[in-house]
Amino acid sequence: MNGNLRIDLDRLMGRIFRLGEIGALPGGGVKRLALSDEDKIGRDLVTEWMRDLGLAVSVDRIGNVWGIRPGAEDLAPVMIGSHIDSVATGGLYDGVLGVLAGLEIIERLNDAGIHTRHPLAVGFFTNEEGARFPPDMMGSGVNQGALDLDEMLTAVGIDGKTVGVELERIGYAGDVPPGTLRPACFLEIHVEQGPVLEEEGIEIGAVTGVQGISWTEFTVSGVSNHAGTTPMRLRHDAGIVSARIAAEARAIADDLGPPQVATVGVIEFGPGLVNVVPESARLTVDLRNTDDAVLKAAEARLRTAAECFAAAEGCGLEVRKLARFAPVPFDPDTVDLIARTAEALGHSVRRMPSGAGHDAQMFAPNCPTAMVFVPSKDGLSHNVKEFTAPEDIRAGADVLLQLALSRAGVVDNAGETS
Amino acid sequence: MNGNLRIDLDRLMGRIFRLGEIGALPGGGVKRLALSDEDKIGRDLVTEWMRDLGLAVSVDRIGNVWGIRPGAEDLAPVMIGSHIDSVATGGLYDGVLGVLAGLEIIERLNDAGIHTRHPLAVGFFTNEEGARFPPDMMGSGVNQGALDLDEMLTAVGIDGKTVGVELERIGYAGDVPPGTLRPACFLEIHVEQGPVLEEEGIEIGAVTGVQGISWTEFTVSGVSNHAGTTPMRLRHDAGIVSARIAAEARAIADDLGPPQVATVGVIEFGPGLVNVVPESARLTVDLRNTDDAVLKAAEARLRTAAECFAAAEGCGLEVRKLARFAPVPFDPDTVDLIARTAEALGHSVRRMPSGAGHDAQMFAPNCPTAMVFVPSKDGLSHNVKEFTAPEDIRAGADVLLQLALSRAGVVDNAGETS
Repeated sequence: MNGNLRIDLDRLMGRIFRLGEIGALPGGGVKRLALSDEDKIGRDLVTEWMRDLGLAVSVDRIGNVWGIRPGAEDLAPVMIGSHIDSVATGGLYDGVLGVLAGLEIIERLNDAGIHTRHPLAVGFFTNEEGARFPPDMMGSGVNQGALDLDEMLTAVGIDGKTVGVELERIGYAGDVPPGTLRPACFLEIHVEQGPVLEEEGIEIGAVTGVQGISWTEFTVSGVSNHAGTTPMRLRHDAGIVSARIAAEARAIADDLGPPQVATVGVIEFGPGLVNVVPESARLTVDLRNTDDAVLKAAEARLRTAAECFAAAEGCGLEVRKLARFAPVPFDPDTVDLIARTAEALGHSVRRMPSGAGHDAQMFAPNCPTAMVFVPSKDGLSHNVKEFTAPEDIRAGADVLLQLALSRAGVVDNAGETS
Repeated sequence: MNGNLRIDLDRLMGRIFRLGEIGALPGGGVKRLALSDEDKIGRDLVTEWMRDLGLAVSVDRIGNVWGIRPGAEDLAPVMIGSHIDSVATGGLYDGVLGVLAGLEIIERLNDAGIHTRHPLAVGFFTNEEGARFPPDMMGSGVNQGALDLDEMLTAVGIDGKTVGVELERIGYAGDVPPGTLRPACFLEIHVEQGPVLEEEGIEIGAVTGVQGISWTEFTVSGVSNHAGTTPMRLRHDAGIVSARIAAEARAIADDLGPPQVATVGVIEFGPGLVNVVPESARLTVDLRNTDDAVLKAAEARLRTAAECFAAAEGCGLEVRKLARFAPVPFDPDTVDLIARTAEALGHSVRRMPSGAGHDAQMFAPNCPTAMVFVPSKDGLSHNVKEFTAPEDIRAGADVLLQLALSRAGVVDNAGETS
């Protein structure tokens, strides 16, 4: 019976578009930087919707907002959440979908008069994007104890303001200690932000975890020389060393195969003149994998190769780790359930890692956690042209609805769990 | 007898250091940008030396200055020259040596009472460096008809001033039409500006010609994508294409061997962020060779490879030629004479191309031309630490002296040519 329950797509899309009006950019997309005036108006709107749906709203000290629908039993809640802040040129769906799909599920259950054993909690986290205040995933990180509350309250934004002051200013400096709400499980639906689902024509991604991330900066020091008068054998060319490191990064990704990715996003030469052999070169390499052992092997191979290339050219090499996060695996049972649920609803599904960070990863070490991905047109993300087709949103939200019912447990009219 | 004639090193070094005081930089080296106040003072000093040596001074319309010592016969002069302008952080020897070694030769001949059949002309060309006004080798280029006088007089410098106005201002807008003086041959001694002679422990370079130069800009256009969410197979990474082009440029130089050189001095990525696949990359490749056929083959191989790399990555490619100069061969007989003369004087010598441009190359198509190189410490050039050991300067100037005598022909006391 409950397996036939479906979300109301028009109602969900209506809320997405309504929230998208707040901070709307002239050419489409939104700008709702964390704790800005636009974020406050968005928060007020979503909180009003929560209250309209009968949810008990609570705000914690880092400004995370939760709307709670009681369960039939005194159990930990099933949590559904994401974020409503955006980057400076954000799309309508990133984060928003995970919050408003949760509200749609609440409203659908309310309409159908369905009660669950576990409470359901729908919410949004402060500053997931990190576009105004570093670091990203701030609210979920504080909530789950990965980040220190007091330190985050004094975090300074790109405009010189601090998180604590801005929370007070917009009225979202709550008094609930972060982490008070201990979830039975955490569920998040999000746009993929990549091209895989669209390219393969698949509707649902059952996210197996978040890739580990390794950012390394290589700084090569050579000798600046005249491009005409210096024979090749007497050169110490920092540029060619950097080009070889970049090619090796690609070769590592090719050799290891998916899900290994490698990106050289920055190369800079000094002095950077057409007829001068570069005396310095700086490049960054972004390596990601879901398997930490493989990621470590990739890092080691790259470093060894870089040292060889520098030594062969008679150049110096400095290696600096800019960032390193271990992979975050999601709960295999919940991932299985997402896959089975999608198939039962007639949707194509694939298991896939998340290449980007999400609030869910903060919960994964502490409770069963998983994510549902829906396709991003052309893989566009953090772009005003970000788009996910309504039918894909419907499919994802329906999967999340069934997932939530399964995890929260439905109480039938006799008070028995179905 | 004349074969025993030697230059006076102290006198030559004295003039080099005296001229080096004009525009001297606090940490060493000089700044005498073309047609600047410092250049005027330097020109005045060298012209005064010319007059003191009894030379007839003439200034042409582009400001080249010549001091002429009459010959016993009405013949075309043997010309010895270079430049006295410098880059913004120049050394004491670049250009200056070629002018002041010429004056030292004149003074030595005066002292010894030696007369030559051909007149001897010693001079300096306007704006060889091109550091203030593009293009470089301006004075010699106009003098030999490779550049247009009127166009060069209106050339605008980095400070917005024009060549013609500045020539008037410093009093060097002469009235002699450039090219009036038609040389029998052109001889130039210059510091190597590269490391080859020092590295091989050789005193004299017999310069066989100036390398051909090919500058190409490659602009790769790909697609900007998220470094985490975009699998390798779906990328169009402009950065990796540029890295592969850079590696191929090096491979071409390695495969062809000397004198082929290849330099990638510039690589720029857009947007240039650690976690974004580059959507654009721009790089420059500087290829040089003394053999134009080989240089053309190198250009063709690089272009074909670049097109393959771009196509394989699904990227666009624009190829723009920034500069292209054919190699300039020097007169083989004169090169041979330099080598024989150096050996006869007990100096080690090697034939070598010039990797940099010089005033002499403007004369090479029009009269027998050759150059003598002396070692540059550590190959440093366009650097305040530029240095050539006095003994190396002595060796080079002695070779030039014998060369000039050989080409100008010595008249003995009986009026006969020796």
